[in-house]
Amino acid sequence: MPAPVIHLGPGDRADLCAAIEDGGGRLGPLEEAAGVVWLGHDPGALPALGDGVRWVQLSSAGVEQWLRAGAITGERTFTSATGAYGLPVAEHALALMLAADKGLAAFARARSWDGDGRTEARALEGATVAIVGAGGIGRALIGLLAPFGAEVLAVTRRGRDVPGAAHTYAATELDAVWPQAHHVVLAAPATDGTRRLVGARELAAMRADAWLVNVARGSLVDTDALVAALREGAIAGAALDVTDPEPLPDGHPLWELPTALITPHVATPPEAERRHFAARVRENVRRLAAGEPLEGVIDPEGGY
Amino acid sequence: MPAPVIHLGPGDRADLCAAIEDGGGRLGPLEEAAGVVWLGHDPGALPALGDGVRWVQLSSAGVEQWLRAGAITGERTFTSATGAYGLPVAEHALALMLAADKGLAAFARARSWDGDGRTEARALEGATVAIVGAGGIGRALIGLLAPFGAEVLAVTRRGRDVPGAAHTYAATELDAVWPQAHHVVLAAPATDGTRRLVGARELAAMRADAWLVNVARGSLVDTDALVAALREGAIAGAALDVTDPEPLPDGHPLWELPTALITPHVATPPEAERRHFAARVRENVRRLAAGEPLEGVIDPEGGY
Repeated sequence: MPAPVIHLGPGDRADLCAAIEDGGGRLGPLEEAAGVVWLGHDPGALPALGDGVRWVQLSSAGVEQWLRAGAITGERTFTSATGAYGLPVAEHALALMLAADKGLAAFARARSWDGDGRTEARALEGATVAIVGAGGIGRALIGLLAPFGAEVLAVTRRGRDVPGAAHTYAATELDAVWPQAHHVVLAAPATDGTRRLVGARELAAMRADAWLVNVARGSLVDTDALVAALREGAIAGAALDVTDPEPLPDGHPLWELPTALITPHVATPPEAERRHFAARVRENVRRLAAGEPLEGVIDPEGGY
Repeated sequence: MPAPVIHLGPGDRADLCAAIEDGGGRLGPLEEAAGVVWLGHDPGALPALGDGVRWVQLSSAGVEQWLRAGAITGERTFTSATGAYGLPVAEHALALMLAADKGLAAFARARSWDGDGRTEARALEGATVAIVGAGGIGRALIGLLAPFGAEVLAVTRRGRDVPGAAHTYAATELDAVWPQAHHVVLAAPATDGTRRLVGARELAAMRADAWLVNVARGSLVDTDALVAALREGAIAGAALDVTDPEPLPDGHPLWELPTALITPHVATPPEAERRHFAARVRENVRRLAAGEPLEGVIDPEGGY
C-alpha cells in the first residue's frame, strides 16, 4: 500500500512533519491529501475538502465550537486530540488536589509562620476521589493516584467499568457519588448533557470537607451556586483551571474567596501539548496507513 | 514466650494501647517493662530506666535533640519513627514539586486572569528528580513518582543502590547531581555531615530551572545563600517545609520573594502521623516479641 498523502496546515511545524513521516505518511498538498492535520481553531477557516480526504485531525481536545459550527460532517472521519493530553491534565488535577489537601493556597498567600486562614493538612493516602467523566484524563489520573491507595469512583456516560476504579457509575447514578468523595474531579466534555452538571443541589450533596476540582470546562459548574457554597462553607474549597465566565473577570468573588484556587486554563503546558499532539498524529497516520480504527474519533451525536 | 510488658507514656493514647496489644505486647508499669513507647519530646523528662528495659520507641523521625542530650545510650536499643512518616512527607514533597511546576504559588496570589509573575507551567512527566537522603521518605516518593516516568537520582550516604532510582550516588558524589535535576528534594537527616549541605556553591551548580524542595530540616540549607540565589534567579524557586531559622520570622526576605513557597513544618498531617506511628509501634512490638530486628534503630555514631 502506498504511503497516504497527509496535508499539514495552516502553517508548518517541523515536529509534526516528522511525526507524519514517522507514522508512514507522506507530506503533500491539500488537493492530493487522504488526510489533513489541521492546526487552526476557527471552523470557518477550514478550506473546502475534496472527496479524497478521508480523515481530518484537529488539534484541540474539546471540539464544542466545531460541532456548533456544523463543521463535523459524516462524509469523513474527524478526530480530536481527546485523551492525548490526558497525562498533562491529570498532573494538573493532582497538583490542585494536593494543593487543596496541604492548604498550599493559604500558605502561598501568608506572610507569617502563624498566618491566618490555615487549615490542618490532610493525607491523600486512602482518600475517596470521584472522577466525573473518566476518559483519557481520568485514566491517567487513576494511574497517578494508584500509589496513594486512593479509592477512585469513576463516572462515565454509560457506567462501563473503568480499570483501576473501585466502582464505576453511570451518569444517571451521580447522586450516589456526590456524598462520598473528598475530591470531586470534573473531567467530562462540555456537552448539552454536562452543562451546569454541578449546581446548588449537587454542591449541597457533597461532603463538607470536599474539594471541587475542575480541569474540564467552566460550563460544567454553576458558578453562582459555587460561590454561594464556598461562602457558606458547604464544601471545603474549589480548585478551578476553567471557569464560567472565562476568562474570570477582575473583581469576581472567586478571586477573593480564601477557599478558591484559580489557574487560568493552563492544565496542558505548551511543551507537553506539542509533544503529546505529535505522538497522536504519528499514531493516527500509522493507523490510517494500516487501515486500523483511529484514536479520538469525534462523535457528533454524543457531542464530543 | 510470654507477651512482653510495654510501658506507654507520658499520658495515654487509646490507639497506641490497641497497637501494643495487637502487636502481641501487654501494657504495664515502667518497673516491669521490657519495652517503652515514649511520647515525650524532652530528653530530660525521660525517667530512669531499669535493666529490664531492652527497647525504647521514640515518636519523632528526627532525633537530633536526643543525641545531643546524650540520651541514646548503648545499654538498650532506641528506635525512632524514621521512615514511618515516609508516605505523608513524600505526599507533601510531591505537592510542593507540582505546585512549583504549575506555578500555583503565583496563581494563588493573583487577583486577575492575566496576573503578574506567572511562569509557563511545565510537566513533571519525564523530569529529573534528585532525592538527597533516600531513606523512608525517598522510597515513598520514588513510588509516587513512578507513574510520571520521572528519572530519579537517589543520594544515600554510601551510595548503595535504591530500588526504582535510575542512578544512586554516594554523598561524596553530590557534585555530579546538582547540575542534572529539575527538582532537588532534601530528605536527609540533620547531622554534622548534612549541615548547610546546600550553600552558595551548590546553588550555583544547579540548573537555572531547578526548584529546591526541603522536607527534611532547615539546617541543611544556607538560608542567606538561598535568598541570594533566588534574588539573582540562579534557580527557579524554593519550596520549603522547614527553614533556618525556624519558625521563619516575620519580615524575613523569603516571605516576600515571589519564587519562594513556605509551608510551616506541616508535612505530616496530624491524623496521618497518629495512624502511621501506631502502625510502627504495632510492628516493633511484634518484632520485639518475636526476637526480630526492630525498625528505625537509632545509630548514635551515624547521628540519626
